[in-house]
Amino acid sequence: MRETPVFEHKLTVPFQDIDAAGVVFYAHLFRYAHEAYEDFMQHIGHSLQDILTAGSYLLPVVHAQADYRRPLHHADKLNIELRLTKLGRTSCTLGYRVLGDNQTEHASLQTVHVALDRTRQGPQTLPAPLQAALARLIPGSDCRADASVNPGAGRARKL
Amino acid sequence: MRETPVFEHKLTVPFQDIDAAGVVFYAHLFRYAHEAYEDFMQHIGHSLQDILTAGSYLLPVVHAQADYRRPLHHADKLNIELRLTKLGRTSCTLGYRVLGDNQTEHASLQTVHVALDRTRQGPQTLPAPLQAALARLIPGSDCRADASVNPGAGRARKL
Amino acid sequence: MRETPVFEHKLTVPFQDIDAAGVVFYAHLFRYAHEAYEDFMQHIGHSLQDILTAGSYLLPVVHAQADYRRPLHHADKLNIELRLTKLGRTSCTLGYRVLGDNQTEHASLQTVHVALDRTRQGPQTLPAPLQAALARLIPGSDCRADASVNPGAGRARKL
Amino acid sequence: MRETPVFEHKLTVPFQDIDAAGVVFYAHLFRYAHEAYEDFMQHIGHSLQDILTAGSYLLPVVHAQADYRRPLHHADKLNIELRLTKLGRTSCTLGYRVLGDNQTEHASLQTVHVALDRTRQGPQTLPAPLQAALARLIPGSDCRADASVNPGAGRARKL
Repeated sequence: MRETPVFEHKLTVPFQDIDAAGVVFYAHLFRYAHEAYEDFMQHIGHSLQDILTAGSYLLPVVHAQADYRRPLHHADKLNIELRLTKLGRTSCTLGYRVLGDNQTEHASLQTVHVALDRTRQGPQTLPAPLQAALARLIPGSDCRADASVNPGAGRARKL
Repeated sequence: MRETPVFEHKLTVPFQDIDAAGVVFYAHLFRYAHEAYEDFMQHIGHSLQDILTAGSYLLPVVHAQADYRRPLHHADKLNIELRLTKLGRTSCTLGYRVLGDNQTEHASLQTVHVALDRTRQGPQTLPAPLQAALARLIPGSDCRADASVNPGAGRARKL
Repeated sequence: MRETPVFEHKLTVPFQDIDAAGVVFYAHLFRYAHEAYEDFMQHIGHSLQDILTAGSYLLPVVHAQADYRRPLHHADKLNIELRLTKLGRTSCTLGYRVLGDNQTEHASLQTVHVALDRTRQGPQTLPAPLQAALARLIPGSDCRADASVNPGAGRARKL
Repeated sequence: MRETPVFEHKLTVPFQDIDAAGVVFYAHLFRYAHEAYEDFMQHIGHSLQDILTAGSYLLPVVHAQADYRRPLHHADKLNIELRLTKLGRTSCTLGYRVLGDNQTEHASLQTVHVALDRTRQGPQTLPAPLQAALARLIPGSDCRADASVNPGAGRARKL
């Protein structure tokens, strides 16, 4: 049995992300997830910057959701685990687990991204190189993690 | 047949809410929704400030989700329609429609709030006055919108 | 003696602008000031949106400063007074007073904006129509506030 | 001649910090500076978290200023150099240089922090241990950087 490859993104909750109830404002977790996503895309060789400056497509979020289990506080050290949970023809779904001390899960999130043709502004199939890079991350996939795609994979486990 | 009462919150997309793709960053819509919610709670006589300073309970978001249909741009004039979509014993669910020009729906969101005992940090029943204020907003409820609850209801339709 | 014309922008401190010390995070006041500025520019007929979509120039902030006198808290109702404090050939300086209850000053800010030629990316003289609209706001100026520039000036005093 | 000790904080401009003009929104640089400051305080053994949870004092920003020389863009890799530029009896001043590629300076900032007695809410002398930790960073000071204060000083040069 193959485990799902997971990409890790670490952060420390900054001073200004607290709300009037003294905990991290819930919407900031979508920002944390997006920073993990941005880091992940760079890691698999498809940085958002490259897509934005050179690509014929965009990859906007069309759905996002979060479940909050335990509050987060100032200076908490977090580990965000990112997994590809679904790979479709025109879209992909990413799952995120927000872990604190002792790997306790504080929240879990999901974002669905659709490939959008920049000219038509309509959905298109995921470009083949991106499709291939993502396919490697599907558990049970025949594709192995390719070292050339993940050069200094310091932060990745099992990618 | 009764229509669902709806609370309206208006805003204009500010200069700094744009992302590198030139549209409103998706997570900001949760912030917009929360500002509508904060405004709404004040409107029904249960301001977050009162709850935080005087209440024995909190009302944190335990689930949030959003579907994005059309991008939003700088200076767009938005109307957020907030509805109570579910009223449980310990929780309530709010739905939000983000409308632009000509009442076009750009996004819809949902937040689930649970009453949390501040001492025990566990769920509790929604306090009776809040329960009553919310019950008035359930479509088909026998309770009518009560003018004393909605004093200068400038922004509310059908509340 | 002529008083300086002043433009007013009102806001209520939202739930999420608090920091781990329980007060408004200092950098948010620059955001509040910028929202007052954006509102002001629209008011004098030179909206940022028009400048960005149709203008040959930009008006970036080249200097910003703030002095903080009293902390701000969640749900505080603020009045930001914006004044043009200096009008140069290529730049203008805006001053902001952040007032709370009883017109107490909590903070004061300043932003300096330079007209930047979009093609050359270098400074240029402020375009004549903008120069004229701003000149009306200089105390002691011969120019009167022009009703056609300030149509429904609901929020402006003495403009 | 002694050089000023400098603390370095690195970051990459995230996707969502861009404004409608396509560059980093100016107020975000105060946030970046504060994150450098928070990191620095932790580094010298006086984390904001410790001050907030255990201290008898606070250290709020009473003045902040920034000069912007070159715009910043999405995905820019930044190095923020933080220096102590002044150490007073009740306050200290920090300077920040925001450097991009090839050590080009994009902006410089300054924040002034005052020690505030938590009970009286008035200024107080900087607590002796903090005073001592900061004094080591004053150029020409007799105090040397003390290894016990800067354990794994991976990010610090000349501290």
